[in-house]
Amino acid sequence: MDSCVTAAIAKSMGHDIYAITFDYGQRNHREIESAVKVALSLGAKEHKIINADLRTFGGSALTDDIEVPEFEKERKGIPPTYVPARNTIFLSYGLAYAEALDADAVFIGANAVDYSGYPDCRKEYIEAYQRVADLGTKRGVEGNPVKIVAPVMDMSKGDIVKKGIELGAPLEHTWSCYKSEEKACGKCDSCILRLKGFEEAGVKDPIEYDQI
Amino acid sequence: MDSCVTAAIAKSMGHDIYAITFDYGQRNHREIESAVKVALSLGAKEHKIINADLRTFGGSALTDDIEVPEFEKERKGIPPTYVPARNTIFLSYGLAYAEALDADAVFIGANAVDYSGYPDCRKEYIEAYQRVADLGTKRGVEGNPVKIVAPVMDMSKGDIVKKGIELGAPLEHTWSCYKSEEKACGKCDSCILRLKGFEEAGVKDPIEYDQI
Repeated sequence: MDSCVTAAIAKSMGHDIYAITFDYGQRNHREIESAVKVALSLGAKEHKIINADLRTFGGSALTDDIEVPEFEKERKGIPPTYVPARNTIFLSYGLAYAEALDADAVFIGANAVDYSGYPDCRKEYIEAYQRVADLGTKRGVEGNPVKIVAPVMDMSKGDIVKKGIELGAPLEHTWSCYKSEEKACGKCDSCILRLKGFEEAGVKDPIEYDQI
Repeated sequence: MDSCVTAAIAKSMGHDIYAITFDYGQRNHREIESAVKVALSLGAKEHKIINADLRTFGGSALTDDIEVPEFEKERKGIPPTYVPARNTIFLSYGLAYAEALDADAVFIGANAVDYSGYPDCRKEYIEAYQRVADLGTKRGVEGNPVKIVAPVMDMSKGDIVKKGIELGAPLEHTWSCYKSEEKACGKCDSCILRLKGFEEAGVKDPIEYDQI
């Protein structure tokens, strides 16, 4: 959902969309099918599905046979669904793609509000990554660095839903559940945060849930 | 050669070696076979060959059907063999692997002397990347970030050859040529810099050349 609204924001700013989706060995393949529908619906010029198999390293409940936990309001620290350096790998491919296209920006749907403990979803992380883009690329050296843009970073989930509806983003094609592929489970961190967002926005979530 | 000596330095510092090689669609596949021999020879605990196909983005003479240029002493700027965000992608996988292993450091053979114009082979780039590792990972948040180490950064090619010989690094298994797979061409940037290194070190390069 965050990625979809991020892409809709980029489009509303006048950018052409060149989408990237990562098949990183995540348990839930539905996410990838949904991304294809979202990219088509937003009129992306191109959509690359990158095979970046992070199962080879392991270390996460999203890629290994570790149980995906149900939501715990009081949980502290970094959850077991953290995937080591995931956004860093995603942004690196985004940067390569942007440079090869001579594109001006990489948009990422990282979100720090309703922060579920991921270190690579924070503003200071994105700022650090910008410096890598400034120093580590041809465009950066030439004084015209690719911008790393995280437009939903400071929005609540409710604001993200509202923004998506305002821009006509295809929220009905998005998928957030970590556990299921048919109907969303309604219980994992990701479902709970999504449902909270729709509730805050006062709108019914268009996807189907197994139980709420 | 730089990667091989870098790994030998890591080993000499007491680290266990977990090697990564990238099959990124580079024209020269010999590089990968050579890396396998080097890792075995250095007694690596594990060696991951990561398929990170950068041909999908294009934009470089190393991955596209653009001519690899012969060495030009006076060439200014970034050469056509620059691959967009290549080291950024490499380091990102390194960081993911290190975090999954709970390893202390990622070593990279980036070298700024005999600088052939690659922005992602400079000290300030590595420093910027360290900040990404500090802020974007679980280990970083927990106050024990993975260190990004580039031990041959400030060495001349001659010093790299000397260091390799001192440490018994398997230089005979390394491959630098951008063009050939059987005998090194002796003419591309990478061959010229390598040969200059052996000359400075006063040692004969153990690999075969087509012509010098």
